[in-house]
Amino acid sequence: MGRTLAFKGRPQISAASSIVGPKEGLGPLASCFDEIMQDDLLGLDSWEKAESEMIRRAAMMCIEQVNMSIEDVDVMLCGDLLNQIIASGFAARALGVPFLGLYGACSTMVEAIILGAALVDSGYRKNAMCAASSHFCSAERQYRFPLEMGTQRPPSAQWTATACGTLMLVPKAEKPLACVTHGTLGVVTDYEIKDANQMGAAMAPAVADTLQAHLRDLDRTPEDYDLIVTGDLGYIGRNILHELLKQREIHVRDEQLVDCGASLFYQEQDTHAGASGCGCVAAVTCGKFLKELRDGKHSRILVLGSGAMLSPISTQQGESIPCISYGVALEGVD
Amino acid sequence: MGRTLAFKGRPQISAASSIVGPKEGLGPLASCFDEIMQDDLLGLDSWEKAESEMIRRAAMMCIEQVNMSIEDVDVMLCGDLLNQIIASGFAARALGVPFLGLYGACSTMVEAIILGAALVDSGYRKNAMCAASSHFCSAERQYRFPLEMGTQRPPSAQWTATACGTLMLVPKAEKPLACVTHGTLGVVTDYEIKDANQMGAAMAPAVADTLQAHLRDLDRTPEDYDLIVTGDLGYIGRNILHELLKQREIHVRDEQLVDCGASLFYQEQDTHAGASGCGCVAAVTCGKFLKELRDGKHSRILVLGSGAMLSPISTQQGESIPCISYGVALEGVD
Repeated sequence: MGRTLAFKGRPQISAASSIVGPKEGLGPLASCFDEIMQDDLLGLDSWEKAESEMIRRAAMMCIEQVNMSIEDVDVMLCGDLLNQIIASGFAARALGVPFLGLYGACSTMVEAIILGAALVDSGYRKNAMCAASSHFCSAERQYRFPLEMGTQRPPSAQWTATACGTLMLVPKAEKPLACVTHGTLGVVTDYEIKDANQMGAAMAPAVADTLQAHLRDLDRTPEDYDLIVTGDLGYIGRNILHELLKQREIHVRDEQLVDCGASLFYQEQDTHAGASGCGCVAAVTCGKFLKELRDGKHSRILVLGSGAMLSPISTQQGESIPCISYGVALEGVD
Repeated sequence: MGRTLAFKGRPQISAASSIVGPKEGLGPLASCFDEIMQDDLLGLDSWEKAESEMIRRAAMMCIEQVNMSIEDVDVMLCGDLLNQIIASGFAARALGVPFLGLYGACSTMVEAIILGAALVDSGYRKNAMCAASSHFCSAERQYRFPLEMGTQRPPSAQWTATACGTLMLVPKAEKPLACVTHGTLGVVTDYEIKDANQMGAAMAPAVADTLQAHLRDLDRTPEDYDLIVTGDLGYIGRNILHELLKQREIHVRDEQLVDCGASLFYQEQDTHAGASGCGCVAAVTCGKFLKELRDGKHSRILVLGSGAMLSPISTQQGESIPCISYGVALEGVD
C-alpha cells in the first residue's frame, strides 16, 4: 500500500474540458484547448470573478460532452490558488453541485483526481467532477505585486497560467478518454528554498519523492510509463528534477519527462522559467494528454502535480517553501 | 444516495484530541480539552506558527492515545482558515505524513471526516487522521483588522476560536469513541448576506439545506438523533436555523439543537454572538461529543459543520457570502 491507492475498478474519465487565457491561446498547445478566452475578464468586472466563471464554463463544457445535466453531477472536487479558494467556491455556487473544496496549490488537480477516483471506484458517488483553475492576473495581485506596478520578474520566475481543466470520473464511460489506475499521496517536503521566485527548485524534490514512492509502492520503473508528466516545474525545476532522479538512480529518459509548465508557452512569449498555476497541469492534462491516451498515442502515463504550500504571510515571516506532489497513473482503455 | 455517503463498514474513531487557547480555557467546556495553551504564541514568534504548532501537538496527542507512531499514519486530512491553509501545510511538514489539504472554511473538520471515512471504509487507507484549526489572532489579522487597532466588534460578530481538534479513523478500534455511519455533502447556498459580521445568518441556510438533504436521503427525522450539533452558527445563527427548520417543517426540539460556537464561551466573556472558526467544531466534537458518545450519554448524533466561503477580496468586490455545510452521523459503539 505505502502512499499509493489502487483503484481496482479502474474508474474512467468520460469527459474533459479546458479553457485558457489569450496568452496561453498563442502558445504551442493552443489547438488542444476547448476555449480560448478573448480577454482576461470574460466581460466581468474583476479577474477573480473571471476565474470563477472559467471554472463554471469548463464544468458546463465537460458535462455537455457526455449529455449530462448539472443536476446529475454527484460531487465536484475543486480548488484554486486564491485566498479561501473563492474561484472554486463561487463557481460551486453558480453550478449548485455538491462540492468538496481542496487546496494543494498547483497540485490540486491531481489531489482532486485521487479523491474523486476513490469516491467513484468505491461506489460512494456515481460520478465525480474534478477541476482546478488559476488566473495570471488574480494570482499576481494576490501573491506578488499589483500588475499596474509593472514589476520586473526575475528569470527564474514562472508565469501563472490563466487556465482551467475539468474532467468527469465515472465507473464506466461510453467513450472513455482514459482510466485512473493508481493515485500516490504526497508528503510535504522542504529543501529550505526561501525565494518565492524559485518555485521549480522548491517543488522538484517533492516530485522526486512522490515519483520514488509511486514506483516503490507498485514495484515499477519509469519504463512502465510512456510519459512522466509533471505540472508545473517549468524549465528550471524540470532540469533539477532530472538531476535529482539521476542521483536517486531513477532513470528517466529526457524525452520521457514532460513538464506542463515548460510546454504551455513558446520561449519567445517571455514567461521566463515557464508556466505554473493549478490550471496549467489541469488544462494540459485535460486538453492534451487525455486525448493522446484516447487516441492510443500513449498507453500509460504518470501525472505528477506539484504544489508550493507557501503564502505571502509565510514568506514575510522568513519561512522556507514547503512543497507537495501527488501522482496519478492514467491508462488508455482498449 | 442523493448527497449522502453510507459507510457500510462503519469506520471507528479510535482517538481524538483537542487543544484550545487561554480564553477558550476559561469557558464552560474547559475540562473537555486535552491541552489549554498558556499563551497565544506557544513560545513561537508568530500566531501563524503557533496555529501550525497547535495542529502538530493535537496530532501527536491523538496518535499517542492509541500508541501509534507518526510513521503509522496513512493519511492526514486537514485544513484551516489561513490563506493557502499554511497552518495545515506547515504542520504536515513537521509531521511528515501523507497529506490531503482541504478547504471548507469552518466546515473543514466535517469535510475531512467524510473523506477520511470514505478512504478508510473502502480500504484505500488503513487509517486517516482528520484535523482542523483556527486561531483568533491569525484570523483577525487576515480577515478583519490588526489586533493592535483595537477595532470595536459589532454585537453580531463571532469570535474565531483558538482551537484545534484531531481524530483518528480506523476500520475497527480497540476502544472506539464512536463510529461514522454517514456523511452528507454540502451544496453552496447564498442568501445574499453581504455583512461579514453576520456569519451566523449567512451560514444557517446552508445548514438547514444539508440537514434536510441528510434526513431525506436516509428517510430519517430529527428524532432519530439525540443531538443535532452545529458548528459554528453562534447564538444568532442557531436561532435563525431553528426558525428556518420550523418553516421547512423539520421539527427539532430546542434542547436537541446544540451549536458548538454558542457553547464554547460564557456570555460574560464578551465574545458577542459566540465562537466560530474551523477549530471550534473540531475541538468541541473531539473534546466533548465523542467522549459523550463513548460514555453512552448519546447513542447517535449528527454533526453539521458550516463554512462561509468568502474572502476579504470577495467582500471588497461587493460579493455576498456563499456558504456550505457538511454533515456526519456518529454513533456510539456497543
